[in-house]
Amino acid sequence: MKKMDRHILLIDCPDAKGLVYRITGVLYEAGANIVANGEFVDGRLGHFFMRTEFSGDCDHQDLQLRLEAVLPAAARLQLSRPRRKKIVLLATREHHCLGDLLLRHAHGELDAAIAAVVSNRPDLGELVRRFELPFHCVPHQDKPRQEHEAEVMAQVAAYEPEYLVLAKYMRILTPHFIDAYPRRIVNIHHSFLPAFIGANPYRQAFERGVKIIGATAHFVTDDLDEGPIIAQSVIPVDHTHSAAAMTQAGRDVEKVVLARALQLVFEERVMVSGNRTIVFD
Amino acid sequence: MKKMDRHILLIDCPDAKGLVYRITGVLYEAGANIVANGEFVDGRLGHFFMRTEFSGDCDHQDLQLRLEAVLPAAARLQLSRPRRKKIVLLATREHHCLGDLLLRHAHGELDAAIAAVVSNRPDLGELVRRFELPFHCVPHQDKPRQEHEAEVMAQVAAYEPEYLVLAKYMRILTPHFIDAYPRRIVNIHHSFLPAFIGANPYRQAFERGVKIIGATAHFVTDDLDEGPIIAQSVIPVDHTHSAAAMTQAGRDVEKVVLARALQLVFEERVMVSGNRTIVFD
Amino acid sequence: MKKMDRHILLIDCPDAKGLVYRITGVLYEAGANIVANGEFVDGRLGHFFMRTEFSGDCDHQDLQLRLEAVLPAAARLQLSRPRRKKIVLLATREHHCLGDLLLRHAHGELDAAIAAVVSNRPDLGELVRRFELPFHCVPHQDKPRQEHEAEVMAQVAAYEPEYLVLAKYMRILTPHFIDAYPRRIVNIHHSFLPAFIGANPYRQAFERGVKIIGATAHFVTDDLDEGPIIAQSVIPVDHTHSAAAMTQAGRDVEKVVLARALQLVFEERVMVSGNRTIVFD
Amino acid sequence: MKKMDRHILLIDCPDAKGLVYRITGVLYEAGANIVANGEFVDGRLGHFFMRTEFSGDCDHQDLQLRLEAVLPAAARLQLSRPRRKKIVLLATREHHCLGDLLLRHAHGELDAAIAAVVSNRPDLGELVRRFELPFHCVPHQDKPRQEHEAEVMAQVAAYEPEYLVLAKYMRILTPHFIDAYPRRIVNIHHSFLPAFIGANPYRQAFERGVKIIGATAHFVTDDLDEGPIIAQSVIPVDHTHSAAAMTQAGRDVEKVVLARALQLVFEERVMVSGNRTIVFD
Repeated sequence: MKKMDRHILLIDCPDAKGLVYRITGVLYEAGANIVANGEFVDGRLGHFFMRTEFSGDCDHQDLQLRLEAVLPAAARLQLSRPRRKKIVLLATREHHCLGDLLLRHAHGELDAAIAAVVSNRPDLGELVRRFELPFHCVPHQDKPRQEHEAEVMAQVAAYEPEYLVLAKYMRILTPHFIDAYPRRIVNIHHSFLPAFIGANPYRQAFERGVKIIGATAHFVTDDLDEGPIIAQSVIPVDHTHSAAAMTQAGRDVEKVVLARALQLVFEERVMVSGNRTIVFD
Repeated sequence: MKKMDRHILLIDCPDAKGLVYRITGVLYEAGANIVANGEFVDGRLGHFFMRTEFSGDCDHQDLQLRLEAVLPAAARLQLSRPRRKKIVLLATREHHCLGDLLLRHAHGELDAAIAAVVSNRPDLGELVRRFELPFHCVPHQDKPRQEHEAEVMAQVAAYEPEYLVLAKYMRILTPHFIDAYPRRIVNIHHSFLPAFIGANPYRQAFERGVKIIGATAHFVTDDLDEGPIIAQSVIPVDHTHSAAAMTQAGRDVEKVVLARALQLVFEERVMVSGNRTIVFD
Repeated sequence: MKKMDRHILLIDCPDAKGLVYRITGVLYEAGANIVANGEFVDGRLGHFFMRTEFSGDCDHQDLQLRLEAVLPAAARLQLSRPRRKKIVLLATREHHCLGDLLLRHAHGELDAAIAAVVSNRPDLGELVRRFELPFHCVPHQDKPRQEHEAEVMAQVAAYEPEYLVLAKYMRILTPHFIDAYPRRIVNIHHSFLPAFIGANPYRQAFERGVKIIGATAHFVTDDLDEGPIIAQSVIPVDHTHSAAAMTQAGRDVEKVVLARALQLVFEERVMVSGNRTIVFD
Repeated sequence: MKKMDRHILLIDCPDAKGLVYRITGVLYEAGANIVANGEFVDGRLGHFFMRTEFSGDCDHQDLQLRLEAVLPAAARLQLSRPRRKKIVLLATREHHCLGDLLLRHAHGELDAAIAAVVSNRPDLGELVRRFELPFHCVPHQDKPRQEHEAEVMAQVAAYEPEYLVLAKYMRILTPHFIDAYPRRIVNIHHSFLPAFIGANPYRQAFERGVKIIGATAHFVTDDLDEGPIIAQSVIPVDHTHSAAAMTQAGRDVEKVVLARALQLVFEERVMVSGNRTIVFD
């Protein structure tokens, strides 16, 4: 017997007349009750995006076949039930994003199950152990980049995570790693992209004398710091902020933006169109 | 021959299974092409809201009949074409909101045609005349409230406006006036509602020592300052701001919030549910 | 031998000519080197406020006498060295503010030493123990209010804290308690004061249909929710936010605002003028 | 007889012990009454900045000599009375910043007297004439860059302005022009610098899929878009914003940021340290 519960349907395909009608028709016949619905047509690309939350006594395999029958061949389609995603966090030395996620996790606010934390340094081990989670330190010293990454990948892969979260992981991932988790790696960038790409963004921001500090959460792609942006926010600063004070101010933005982006991703609210995101919030 | 163009459909009704399917089915059969679609179900009230933008060669009367045939009897339904709304502005002495709207209007950015400005004081006449628009001063001195309002209503009514905008109009409207334009009067409130209701909000804000000043745009209902909120925003202040400086800071927020709310209203993006708004932005 | 280090001087007194000259004269003669200086004259009250950070080889007792000699009799004067304040946290069931402070504390970012956490409920004990800090549960059930408060006060007093932080402590303090820590108790209010005073602010915010949620950190005085505001911030919400989702959104603002306010307070940047704060940031 | 009134003193020099004492001593002996005072020491550069507002019956020439006697030889010193600055605006085709400044000016809120508007296009002439101000169109077509700029400079110079405001002036100024008004030209940049430097920033922002749009007001230096930043602000956007909608959203930020920056500059609150500003707000 199938369970009566909540479902999330994501569809994207070339735009065409009657798509919403056809899709909601299949859902209606399947006895689904639509709870929330969002559509967006990217006029430039002529592409259709839709996210539907519905309840009902549905068989996903059957529904998928019925939907494919009314959609263009090129359609991408994902049916899932809301559930806590299994994730692995990667971090290096900074505790603010990691600690914030551990706290939310410990109190059931993350909508995800943290399977483990992997780091290239030992510093954050104590923090992770406070929350009784596995911590794996894979030192990068005296190792070729490829070898270190292979070890990290092995550690990560052992947990079979659905998403990776780079919670201030200060190593650059190779395309090989990224390709293993397409659109499944979320990074928090210590800056308001596309400003201050690269090292020492707060030092750069200080030198430039900016009056606002920002943070950007994005999917990781082969183009470093250039993946689709999920969420951004800012905090005001002024001339009394040293580079260190700007860093501190930036941390509060970073952790809030990362948590917000993860919530959107875990609730299947983020679709990707080229290098842009469609966020059904 | 009917014209091929853009249409906006607003529907709200008690929630039921298959509503989106039934509605988009009628649109599909009518040859409509959906450009943007938003639905929202207010779970508490079990009420369904939908806004659809579509293009096509459609007859509104025919479409309305067909939609009514598939909707619950209690459904409210509005079909329109995007067009510049005819509006009348009411103001008193403060120029910032009025001036901002006149500027946008003069440069085709308001999505509305300002038919006239009515005021209970002569002060803003010069500003309005710079933009070559009718200005009517209806002084309230030495007149019973009812009589003054009747005169204002007559002036306004002569233009048959679709919406009234209270751009810092410092007179309280009676239910009689408000009922003549249900959900058609937009006010900008000089505060972050529901804080500082009533007179001298910036003085109140100063005395309270707040660190943020806000502004609220809302529909006017019989409950003064209690109508459905359309948009809000804030600006930071500190102890160096006198009450006068807070007033000045507040003005920049007010004009931006009012303009934003009017854009949402004129594009038919705002629906009302009890005392709350559903904004399809 | 006296130590060469950093000092903070706070002065407030009725305004008079030459105050800055006289004060900086005393500092100059004492060999002090001013690092940062802020003055503010509240024109309405004719009151002078000054915060000076200086370095140098100074004896506080001697300096105090010399300053008193050049200041009006009514002057309030405080000389201190930057140091981590000893604090006690009070909490009830919500973890977000408490957890955030525990994290910052564990990583040396709080500028204060948390001596203990006192709560009227056991729920947060596990979280506090993760960080190896004392947790005291003083249940309020089946006890007269006065008796419960006396027990809490005893627990708190045993640590001789300089500041108390109400990190979502859901009990109202009596004037007796408050008077024991004048301007030494910081509260985070789950709302953008003065809106939504009282119980269930997020429910109230939801019912009112606001588009922005805020949080306010303030000193606790005998007037509930009416003490001097230290910091405020906001986050946007919309009709898709249930009261529960607004609560969740509000939590992120609350913890950031509380941490910001505590940093200002612990760095001796906040002075109080009647019911307003002067913040030298 | 000298007039009793308000004065503003700006000083910057290498940091040294006793500077505030010496400066306020001179002011005290001159019978000045300090109303507001701000100091800042840039620790990296060992440089001292001070802004003092005082009232009193003072002779500037005499005061300047007395101050120079107690300050390092390298000190820069500026004494002035608060007064409306004479300014010239340069614009091209976009009306939002220009219109906003004309409105504020017409209602006495700009703290400056607009002497004239100079443009390389005729489009904004009608708007300027509404406010009865001189408008000079200096077309750039079919002219060498140098020749056009020389004509613009001549038009501007005829008014002997203290500040130039580039209110969306879409021509690049040569160093020759900029050097004639050092730190006297304020530009509004259609972006959150240093992101999206160069042409079509909103198109760039759209392509990059940002979630926030910003604007930056800065002094113009020889490095295009690289001068000291005075003020910045942002506005949220999302995937439903086309490049055109982002442009529109950006305009509201631009005009508010420019007005804010000008207010700071005209009140002599902005000092420059290398490529950064010290803002005494």
